[in-house]
Amino acid sequence: MEFSFASRSSKLLSSHLNRVNKEQRQSSFISLAEELPAEEFFPIKRLGEAARKVLSSDPSVLQYGEPEGYAPLRSWISEDWKQRRGMQTAADQILLTTGTQQAIDLITRLLVDTGDSVVVENPTSPGCLQVLEMQGADIIAVENDLEGILPDCLEAQFQRAKPKLLFAAPSFSNPTGILWSLERRKAVLELCRKYEVLIIEDDSYGELHFGTEEAAACFSESYPALYALDVMDGGNQVLYIGSFSKTIAPALRTGWAVGDKTLIKGMSSLKQMADWQSSPMNQQILYHLLHESSFRWKDHLALLNREYEVRLKLMLELLKRPGFKEVKYHPPSGGMYLWIQLPNGLSSEALLRASIRRGVAFLPGSRCSPGKQTDEYIRINFSRPGREELLLGMNLISEAIQEFTARR
Amino acid sequence: MEFSFASRSSKLLSSHLNRVNKEQRQSSFISLAEELPAEEFFPIKRLGEAARKVLSSDPSVLQYGEPEGYAPLRSWISEDWKQRRGMQTAADQILLTTGTQQAIDLITRLLVDTGDSVVVENPTSPGCLQVLEMQGADIIAVENDLEGILPDCLEAQFQRAKPKLLFAAPSFSNPTGILWSLERRKAVLELCRKYEVLIIEDDSYGELHFGTEEAAACFSESYPALYALDVMDGGNQVLYIGSFSKTIAPALRTGWAVGDKTLIKGMSSLKQMADWQSSPMNQQILYHLLHESSFRWKDHLALLNREYEVRLKLMLELLKRPGFKEVKYHPPSGGMYLWIQLPNGLSSEALLRASIRRGVAFLPGSRCSPGKQTDEYIRINFSRPGREELLLGMNLISEAIQEFTARR
Repeated sequence: MEFSFASRSSKLLSSHLNRVNKEQRQSSFISLAEELPAEEFFPIKRLGEAARKVLSSDPSVLQYGEPEGYAPLRSWISEDWKQRRGMQTAADQILLTTGTQQAIDLITRLLVDTGDSVVVENPTSPGCLQVLEMQGADIIAVENDLEGILPDCLEAQFQRAKPKLLFAAPSFSNPTGILWSLERRKAVLELCRKYEVLIIEDDSYGELHFGTEEAAACFSESYPALYALDVMDGGNQVLYIGSFSKTIAPALRTGWAVGDKTLIKGMSSLKQMADWQSSPMNQQILYHLLHESSFRWKDHLALLNREYEVRLKLMLELLKRPGFKEVKYHPPSGGMYLWIQLPNGLSSEALLRASIRRGVAFLPGSRCSPGKQTDEYIRINFSRPGREELLLGMNLISEAIQEFTARR
Repeated sequence: MEFSFASRSSKLLSSHLNRVNKEQRQSSFISLAEELPAEEFFPIKRLGEAARKVLSSDPSVLQYGEPEGYAPLRSWISEDWKQRRGMQTAADQILLTTGTQQAIDLITRLLVDTGDSVVVENPTSPGCLQVLEMQGADIIAVENDLEGILPDCLEAQFQRAKPKLLFAAPSFSNPTGILWSLERRKAVLELCRKYEVLIIEDDSYGELHFGTEEAAACFSESYPALYALDVMDGGNQVLYIGSFSKTIAPALRTGWAVGDKTLIKGMSSLKQMADWQSSPMNQQILYHLLHESSFRWKDHLALLNREYEVRLKLMLELLKRPGFKEVKYHPPSGGMYLWIQLPNGLSSEALLRASIRRGVAFLPGSRCSPGKQTDEYIRINFSRPGREELLLGMNLISEAIQEFTARR
């Protein structure tokens, strides 16, 4: 028989998003396109010890658990927030998810009806755009400068379209790596309060900040989460989403959402409908790692940040290759990506095709914007590739760019 | 701020489904309501060994994996099907999911537009109904007899409503425990071919069949999956969904969908949007258990089936209690549930309220039917409760029924 897809899923399937991934899996292929952390820093030995502990206890650890997630891990997150980031929350305001992507899907299904307006940063992550398109949202992309989303543009859209939600990633946004200033954070929160727009704060990369030890120590004071700023004033204007995928390991598939109890309860009911619950086994293993083992969470984050900064510096060196002469970029101070503006008139999709032929891929900017306005940008991942891969990959992209610029 | 939910999620949130679960978590409470396997048969020791093996290898086991799931586990499923059930499939026709509930959600989002007609068995599982309601399907419930869904009623609906999908659980349906006869399986498949209706075959309970060793040995010949019957004739009319939650352990959160490559590819893209992927770590642990350890899959299934049959027999004994004098039921030959018709005029929701006050819960039949037509039925789980719990729980339900019947 022939199958007839739902109208919105046909649109999703015709997008190019998955194509890059398939090609990347060939062994000789170099991918700077994916959203992968470095494998060599996964605490695999300690996770093995934690798993041994969990799986040598009562078999009830393997039963279905609470749909909201393993309560002690939710308490641990709440306590960690208090200690390290001065953020107040209760365990029953936390829902454990399979990662930030699932949190985005759940909150969107919970709140967005077809035709509802939703504001995103321009550019924004392809995963977020896909969810919003699938739910039939009217997506409004508002421009950023280096301090964050532009308040004047935002207010104009709030007045015009009365959006329901603002999706924002104020700390090292995917794809731009922008870190919003404190002033901008306050201004955006103020606007969202005035116009009653709920903020979905994606903090997937917020723990990955570079710089001196002193700067690291006061990072969350200098750049508090919108959630923290809001809660300080007794607000419920922000739903915060985070993940252990970039800081511990993706295969645990554990992230979380924090916010008003009404939202968390709603998301929890929707999660039961969508997949019943995430793995309570994995949540218990993670809890044992974080709470009970000799694993030192703060030191682990510091290690990641030192190493990722080294990789970023290497990438910035490689951007001195001839092909990159006309590109523009702003070195980020955290996250996993560099967002690069191509020489005038060069399309990221065209460059991708040429690059794939040479054996390298990146994320074309066209996929980070609802109207493909950012087609002249590319996103390059610097967290996963090792030194040799980064060298070769950047050389190949440099050659591919030269192939185009030479023609002009 | 006040939150305004999407219209369909408000409907979901106002349903009673989650309320029972909350109450069940009190320690003295006896729940015969949930869909839980018996913990004492989880192969926790061998899973511990498998986890040790997986977590003592290369850290790449903790990286993001393929969105379709760990390829060796997909191959294992394909091989197991061939050997034990004579079913032919290729690994690239298999998508690993977080369980059957996720498979139902994904295929529904992929195919169903608002207002599309979808046929379900009446009664059907609350989880399936929730997904269909959330997607805006026009749900048509077709009656069963003890041999399965009624072909005449089915054809009448096919002619009238031209539905896109038929959801069916031919082997020990949730909630009824009905096992469709071979003849009925063939008749329904034939009808779906004639009217081009895709069958979603939920086989969550199909491995849990009781009876003699001889009967067990030829179960899949006597009651072949609709998928098997269809593929034998070269069809692509059936999407099959299965799970390890009821046979190995729920906390692994691993199930699968098998079908036409076009559907599997579409579901895989949607899965990336919904949660990126299920845990590759858990999939690898499961693979090590099934493929590499001394764990014997067939023996394990046989053990479960012997033990569950004992529990069912105890429950049938307990149905001789005075309160159950006027109830009607058909003992199932597999699965995890007994579906009981209450004495005339007694509402399952009213009985549930009275039962919860006494400290016991079951699933009220009203939640298994789109129009609540099955309010005079209850579903009782016999797989998880131990002997004492089952005794006490059934006594309490018996008393609660008597409270009502005495008034008449």
